[in-house]
Amino acid sequence: MSHDIRIVTEAELRDVVTLDLETVDVIEAAFTALASGTVVMPPILSMELKEANGEVDVKTAYIPGFDGFAIKVSPGFFDNPTLGLPSLNGLMILFSAKTGLVQAVFLDNGYLTDVRTAAAGAVAARHLAPETVRTAGVIGTGVQARLQAQAAHLVRPFERLLVWGRDGEKAKACADDLRQALGIEVQVAPDAEALVRESTLVVTTTAAREPVLRADWLHPGLHITAMGSDQPGKNEIDPAALFAADAYICDRVSQCETSGELEAALASGHWTGGRPAELGEVIAGTSQGRIDPQAITICDLTGTGAQDTAIATHVFSRLDSAGTIIEV
Amino acid sequence: MSHDIRIVTEAELRDVVTLDLETVDVIEAAFTALASGTVVMPPILSMELKEANGEVDVKTAYIPGFDGFAIKVSPGFFDNPTLGLPSLNGLMILFSAKTGLVQAVFLDNGYLTDVRTAAAGAVAARHLAPETVRTAGVIGTGVQARLQAQAAHLVRPFERLLVWGRDGEKAKACADDLRQALGIEVQVAPDAEALVRESTLVVTTTAAREPVLRADWLHPGLHITAMGSDQPGKNEIDPAALFAADAYICDRVSQCETSGELEAALASGHWTGGRPAELGEVIAGTSQGRIDPQAITICDLTGTGAQDTAIATHVFSRLDSAGTIIEV
Repeated sequence: MSHDIRIVTEAELRDVVTLDLETVDVIEAAFTALASGTVVMPPILSMELKEANGEVDVKTAYIPGFDGFAIKVSPGFFDNPTLGLPSLNGLMILFSAKTGLVQAVFLDNGYLTDVRTAAAGAVAARHLAPETVRTAGVIGTGVQARLQAQAAHLVRPFERLLVWGRDGEKAKACADDLRQALGIEVQVAPDAEALVRESTLVVTTTAAREPVLRADWLHPGLHITAMGSDQPGKNEIDPAALFAADAYICDRVSQCETSGELEAALASGHWTGGRPAELGEVIAGTSQGRIDPQAITICDLTGTGAQDTAIATHVFSRLDSAGTIIEV
Repeated sequence: MSHDIRIVTEAELRDVVTLDLETVDVIEAAFTALASGTVVMPPILSMELKEANGEVDVKTAYIPGFDGFAIKVSPGFFDNPTLGLPSLNGLMILFSAKTGLVQAVFLDNGYLTDVRTAAAGAVAARHLAPETVRTAGVIGTGVQARLQAQAAHLVRPFERLLVWGRDGEKAKACADDLRQALGIEVQVAPDAEALVRESTLVVTTTAAREPVLRADWLHPGLHITAMGSDQPGKNEIDPAALFAADAYICDRVSQCETSGELEAALASGHWTGGRPAELGEVIAGTSQGRIDPQAITICDLTGTGAQDTAIATHVFSRLDSAGTIIEV
C-alpha cells in the first residue's frame, strides 16, 4: 500500500509558518504537555565529528494527543563559514504517531528550529517577565538575537531595546535590523553590564563558555532568558546568579543539568536549591514562577524535542499544497 | 548558497542496490572500520510509543574516510498489519561528513536496512562458518529469513536449505520462495532441533523472547548467526549455548550486552567469558574466530549505525540520475 510523503523546502516553510503569537501558543502547549509527565522524550543523540570540527544532534519527543512526532537532526559544522556555508543546517521528519509512517520531510536548514527556539523565549517571557517591560536587552548579535527580541516583543511590547555583542559592527547591524523590524528605539549598549542594569527583560543568545552576565548586575524586577547554552561546556550566566535569583526555571531539568546553565552552577557548587522547576510546571501552575514585580527570575532554555514535535505537527496542518509530493 | 538534495524512493533504491557480493564487501568494510577504533558510533536513540504499540530507533555512525554519514530512523508499529500496513518502515538520511549538509533522503521503508542486515549475515558466514557448507538452516519465515538465506548462499553456496517457523504455512511459503530464488533443494524442517542437527550453518531471524535454539543441539562444525535480537528482552539462543560455543562473536559488544543474545546470557550468569570479540576484529585478524572445522561458532548481530553509513554512502555513489532533486 503506497502513501504520499510531502517534501518541503526552507523557502516553502517560510511561507507557511512564521514567528507569531499562534506559533508561540503552539510551543506553549508543548511545554504544558511536558509538565504533565506523559510526554516521552529520550535523551538527545549526539555525535562529534572532530576531524570536520562538526557535531550532530538528534532530538525527538512523543506528545500524547498529537497526530505526529518529529525527529529533528541538527548538524553544526563550524568550519563551514570558510566555505561560504552556514554552520547550522539540518532537517525535521514528521512521522505518524499512529503508524510510524513518514508523513513529511522538512528540509528547513534549521529554520523551524530557529522559530520554535524563539517562540520558547516568548513563552518564558510571557510567564516569567514582569507584566510591564519598557526596556529589553539582548546579548549576542546572531539569528537568535534578532528572533528572540522579536519573540519577546510579541508578549511584552517594550518601547526600547538594547543590543550588545563582542563585535561592535555586528551589534550595530543587529540593532539596525531590529529597529526596522520592531519600529522602536534600538541602541547598541556600551557593555553588557549597562544593558542588564537598564533592562527589565534580558535574553542571552551567545555560544559563550565563560559567563557574559554577572550575578552582581542582577536588580529587582529583572527577568533573564538564557537560550544560548545547549551543549556541555557552554555557560552564559554567572553560576552565582542562578541561586541569587528568586526563581531559576529550566525548560527541562535533565537537559539543563548537562547542557544548560545549571551545569556550571552544579559543578561550582553554586546551586544548592534542589530540583529547579520547569517552565511547563510554571505554565500549569504547579510550580511557582515570578512571585511579585520586584522578583528576579531566570529561565534556562536548552531546546526540547517536544518543541520540535509541536512545530512540525503545526506546520503539517498548515501546508495546504506546499511542497513536493513523493509517492512511496 | 543553495544546494541539491536527492530524494530517492524504495522503488528507485531497489533498482540501484541489491543484495550481492559487492554489497557484502561494502558492509564488511564497515565492520573492519568498526574494529579500528576510529569510528564514532553513539548509543542508539530509542523511543517507545506505548499507546500505539510502537517504537522508533535512530542509529548513526561516522566512519573516518567515508564522504558521508547516515542517520537512520526505524519505526516499528506492531498494530500496523491490522491496518494493512507493514510494521517496519523508516528512512535514511545521508549527510556530508565535511559540511553536515543533507545530501540525500532515502525513503526506503526499511529496504536498505533489510539489505545491510542480510549483508552482515554474509560477512559473519564468510568469516566464521566452516569453509564447506552442504546444508544450511534458517529459523523464522519473514523478510530476513529469505534475505539471510540468500546472503549466506552468496558466500557459502550450500546445496540444501532447511526452513523452520512456528507457523507451518509461512514456513512453506518461505521455503517455496527460497527454492525459486536459490534453485536448490529447500525443505521445511519438522522442528528447530532437526534443522539445527542437520545444518552446518544456521541463521536465526525471529523476534523471540524465549530461546528457539537450545544449547544441547550444538554439534561440532556448526556456525550460528543470530540476527533477530535487537531490543532489550529479545532472546533467540539458549544462554548456555554462548559459553558452550568455541567462539561467541558480537557485531558490537556494547549493543549485544543490552539488546543482543549476550543480554540474557549475562543476566542468567551463563556468560563468564569476559569481553567477547567483535566481528570486525575477527575480519581484521586481531581476534580469533573459527579455530578449526569442528569448532562451534556463534555470531550475534544487533545491527550497527556503521552498516547504515556504509550502505547509504555506497548507494549515493551509484545513484546516477535516480531520484527527485530538490533545491534548498
